[in-house]
Amino acid sequence: MAEANSKDYVVGVDLGGTKILAGVFKSSFETLATTKLSTKAQRGVKEVIERIARCVQDAVDEADLSLKQVAGIGIGAPGSVNFDDGTVIFAPNMEGWKDVPLKKELEKHLGVPVFVENDCNIGALGVYGAELKSKPRSMVGIFVGTGIGGGIIINGELYSGAGHTAGEVGHMVLDINGPKCGCGNKGCFEALASRTAMFQQIKAGVKEGQKTVLTEMLGSDLSDLRSNDLRKAIRKGDKFVDKIVEEAAEYIGIATANLINILNPEVVVLGGGVIQALQDEMMSVIIETAKDYAMAGSLKGVEIVASDLGDDAGITGGAVLARRHAKD
Amino acid sequence: MAEANSKDYVVGVDLGGTKILAGVFKSSFETLATTKLSTKAQRGVKEVIERIARCVQDAVDEADLSLKQVAGIGIGAPGSVNFDDGTVIFAPNMEGWKDVPLKKELEKHLGVPVFVENDCNIGALGVYGAELKSKPRSMVGIFVGTGIGGGIIINGELYSGAGHTAGEVGHMVLDINGPKCGCGNKGCFEALASRTAMFQQIKAGVKEGQKTVLTEMLGSDLSDLRSNDLRKAIRKGDKFVDKIVEEAAEYIGIATANLINILNPEVVVLGGGVIQALQDEMMSVIIETAKDYAMAGSLKGVEIVASDLGDDAGITGGAVLARRHAKD
Repeated sequence: MAEANSKDYVVGVDLGGTKILAGVFKSSFETLATTKLSTKAQRGVKEVIERIARCVQDAVDEADLSLKQVAGIGIGAPGSVNFDDGTVIFAPNMEGWKDVPLKKELEKHLGVPVFVENDCNIGALGVYGAELKSKPRSMVGIFVGTGIGGGIIINGELYSGAGHTAGEVGHMVLDINGPKCGCGNKGCFEALASRTAMFQQIKAGVKEGQKTVLTEMLGSDLSDLRSNDLRKAIRKGDKFVDKIVEEAAEYIGIATANLINILNPEVVVLGGGVIQALQDEMMSVIIETAKDYAMAGSLKGVEIVASDLGDDAGITGGAVLARRHAKD
Repeated sequence: MAEANSKDYVVGVDLGGTKILAGVFKSSFETLATTKLSTKAQRGVKEVIERIARCVQDAVDEADLSLKQVAGIGIGAPGSVNFDDGTVIFAPNMEGWKDVPLKKELEKHLGVPVFVENDCNIGALGVYGAELKSKPRSMVGIFVGTGIGGGIIINGELYSGAGHTAGEVGHMVLDINGPKCGCGNKGCFEALASRTAMFQQIKAGVKEGQKTVLTEMLGSDLSDLRSNDLRKAIRKGDKFVDKIVEEAAEYIGIATANLINILNPEVVVLGGGVIQALQDEMMSVIIETAKDYAMAGSLKGVEIVASDLGDDAGITGGAVLARRHAKD
């Protein structure tokens, strides 16, 4: 069959501090197979690269394909990345990741063209390519999860800035007197509206004697708390959790308005695990607050939408990146 | 002489709510002559356009030239502008300015190609073209005056967004619980660090009995207060004024850091009347605060500089715009 020799497939990889996800995609960005391995960053750079290669090989095998049928591999890495030479310049959450030639090393292992980008940039590209079909000329993606990251599309292309770090929307200060952020500053968007921020507020409330159905569901230490539990609590009428989620949504709305005022994009997409779990609870508050805070002229014609890709944004973006840059 | 027929010159125009400035420039962006007329916006759109035309003619005459020697005219208008067709979509501070075909009308009056942009965009372009010689690939301009505006250069070109309103940095919320802004929201950058914001704080302080040399200099109502007076007061050792200016500089530094985190540009330029008057007092605080608040990776290699163009940024930017788009 001719099919067997044509390189119809691409692989997207999401390299995280704790896990590696790989997905095999057909041209239209449907997933054929996905695999997951833990990162084991503590074992060192070389071993992580071998694990990425193994994860890709497993995914391709899982889809009953061979690497020869793969046109390219796109990979998102957590840190600043030089797309042009495929180097991870610095990944703060992975020990030893400084100037790692990830593209070169993976190409050696796999014999397939590899393209590397920052993980939030690649998430934005996934939403842009697979969900918006690359139609708008400009887009801002805001990803709310453990932290908050972003990615910017300008003139139909990823915009990564002079030093490959553009889109760090999570450290935009929204409340100069707000809570302390992991970065050392106060009142960063991430310190106000990430999953980590909401969980901290809930745990602090419980410590102070606040009643919530979450403790009935999960025990008083809430050690296994997840975003989905917040949705369940709200649906059970938990006013305490409802208020915390609503306030986080308001901060996301203000950040959205700031970005609309600065960049006036065609579309703002909200994604990430928190939005995926709490879309029904948060999106209307986000949109309403963004409309309150954006300048009328800047807001005109801007769409604010939720992504349904959730944790798949990374591997999907990898597939879009590979599809854009690999030659069949 | 061949010289007399070659179109070596361009004109830059800064259309403001109260005054029209025009300047004639040679290729290298030295000013040969400038003129000023009041806008008289209350007399209606048609008359304002005639006044712009007159201001241009006067400037050209002042430089001992004729319109035949002018290759193009670049004009900055206060509001959202569609560069492509030269229409002022909406100018909030000028009555009746809605969908005004400014390019077409001025070309009818003057017989010279006209190019129209938003005033802050054109200010950014002036700094970029004349001061930075169009060298960086990306730049953010922050202009601090009565209000606060901005302009963004990406890939060597003005970035104006999907609806021609990008760069509204003045309405970025920095302090959710901060003072009320003219736009209706609370804690906008403009409500914290513009000349208007500083003057309000000073006047409120004086009303509450605060001692300052400003009242000795200008009388107790401070009706004729200007940015330069703040510099004079600080140099006379006025701690009250010093503190207000320092706090504004800190907010400008935080806004600078937010924009560095989001856009990771090569250069951030601070301009406008406040920076021109208080450069020595503010710039070191702005830079220090921006370094504190920007992510280390995003900050790497970013230059933060003051523009010396002051109120001439607009006409200079008009000249750069005309030079970029007019054919000799």
